[in-house]
Amino acid sequence: MSEDTARPERFEETLYPGWRQVFAVDRIVHRERTEHQDLVIFESPVFGRVLALDGIVQITEGDEYMYQEMMVHVPVIGHGDARRVCIVGGGDGGCLREALKHPQVEPTLVEIDAGVVEFSKRWLPSIGKAALEDPRSRLVIADGVDFMRTTDETFDVIIIDSTDPQGPGAVLFTQEFYAACHARLTERGVLVTQNGVPFTQGAEVTTSWHRLRGAGFADVAFYGVPVPSYVGGFMALGWASKDPATRDLSAETVTDRVAGLDLHTRYWTPEIQRACFALPQYIKDLMR
Amino acid sequence: MSEDTARPERFEETLYPGWRQVFAVDRIVHRERTEHQDLVIFESPVFGRVLALDGIVQITEGDEYMYQEMMVHVPVIGHGDARRVCIVGGGDGGCLREALKHPQVEPTLVEIDAGVVEFSKRWLPSIGKAALEDPRSRLVIADGVDFMRTTDETFDVIIIDSTDPQGPGAVLFTQEFYAACHARLTERGVLVTQNGVPFTQGAEVTTSWHRLRGAGFADVAFYGVPVPSYVGGFMALGWASKDPATRDLSAETVTDRVAGLDLHTRYWTPEIQRACFALPQYIKDLMR
Repeated sequence: MSEDTARPERFEETLYPGWRQVFAVDRIVHRERTEHQDLVIFESPVFGRVLALDGIVQITEGDEYMYQEMMVHVPVIGHGDARRVCIVGGGDGGCLREALKHPQVEPTLVEIDAGVVEFSKRWLPSIGKAALEDPRSRLVIADGVDFMRTTDETFDVIIIDSTDPQGPGAVLFTQEFYAACHARLTERGVLVTQNGVPFTQGAEVTTSWHRLRGAGFADVAFYGVPVPSYVGGFMALGWASKDPATRDLSAETVTDRVAGLDLHTRYWTPEIQRACFALPQYIKDLMR
Repeated sequence: MSEDTARPERFEETLYPGWRQVFAVDRIVHRERTEHQDLVIFESPVFGRVLALDGIVQITEGDEYMYQEMMVHVPVIGHGDARRVCIVGGGDGGCLREALKHPQVEPTLVEIDAGVVEFSKRWLPSIGKAALEDPRSRLVIADGVDFMRTTDETFDVIIIDSTDPQGPGAVLFTQEFYAACHARLTERGVLVTQNGVPFTQGAEVTTSWHRLRGAGFADVAFYGVPVPSYVGGFMALGWASKDPATRDLSAETVTDRVAGLDLHTRYWTPEIQRACFALPQYIKDLMR
């Protein structure tokens, strides 16, 4: 489990050399160890089931809602009339689950690996099994970069629910890919991206700031959500849209847009829709 | 250092049984081990100097500014004309340092232990040594509860910069103490408190919610700041004031109040002054 074989009941994350989180392991639920990767799901106090890949926490049952809700409701409410929503990655179904809370949304999930969808339904069913099997959900098994470059469909909102920009996920952080997304967005379209934890991964903010602006968007920003198992304070989510009005909502507009909606959220609130764009100075300093 | 003697170069925090953070230790700067407590300061990557007491991180050089700035600037700007500011606890001088950034503020620090002040000046000078030695600072070595009960002074802002509500710090979390603070606040006075991390210490929000309201304040709320070394997403800071207008500022009022001020903050911004009160639903659900 951990490198410390004397303590098989612990999982120690190896993301940062000088600062680590350690989870108590009540039970190993599933493990797949190949020569290429080491995937494990375990039950833990505080967080419930935790999925880790090569020593790095990907998602936990206990706090995934914070990330998923903010990835979905902020752009969908910001747009105001989003119907066609494309989620790139996100094979766990969590973003899909949140998208389905909006009755008018027709979600498309573009996941490169069909195995991730089946794996998630089997081992992390509480997150997205129902959403992945919902008749309103359209699942496309394809490379997100290829899909965005070749499709003739357009979307009101595109959500890049990627892994970190190391390894296979790196192609989802390029200016070329952002430009391809821009080309597939409708007139008032919004793109959001997973953008790392600025306190420890500050360069990701600076890089994305330049690439999103270079991709032709009228408005580029970041918004914050502190997810406990992504240690380091705020996680930054990237925001790029064709119309600055999608971000600059009045409190009254937000109230109007959620009237009649029954979102049942545990993180997102109408107040957070606007407040999440107020970033601490140490993050603003990275947008340069 | 840690319990694992095979790894003396690590410090493992023991705050939560099922979820821990581990710091690499570059160098132990200072250690005091008595039969009553185990205090250590070490140098670590990411966070610089870290002070831990009985296995629990108290403060780090790398992120203390987030907490200190939010404890001070939010009530001082919210009040709008705060002159007499009382900090209870805070012997490290960090809150004092932030208070001194406001030219009109006359800060009083009430610390129970003169040793903490001397210790902080010696071992964590970057945090508050200059502030603790500033001629504008008034240092009172006294029990905060006794001081607040017996003084005839009044304050515009009272800041409870306490440890957690276990052990000696518990008296700073009682309704009686909040009522004593209320009695020492001027007409538009504001009280703020350190209130734990709701994701893991949710009962603290519920308890303080009741006690602050029971102490007679016209407006009680919480505001959030995600401090990386206080793992668990948002830390909640308690807010109780005699005038709801101190919290409900317009963007224009904030702009007016900071005009001419040169705060040089790394976390607080004028936008955060208002946005920090927008809490996630899982924290709002604890205010019941």
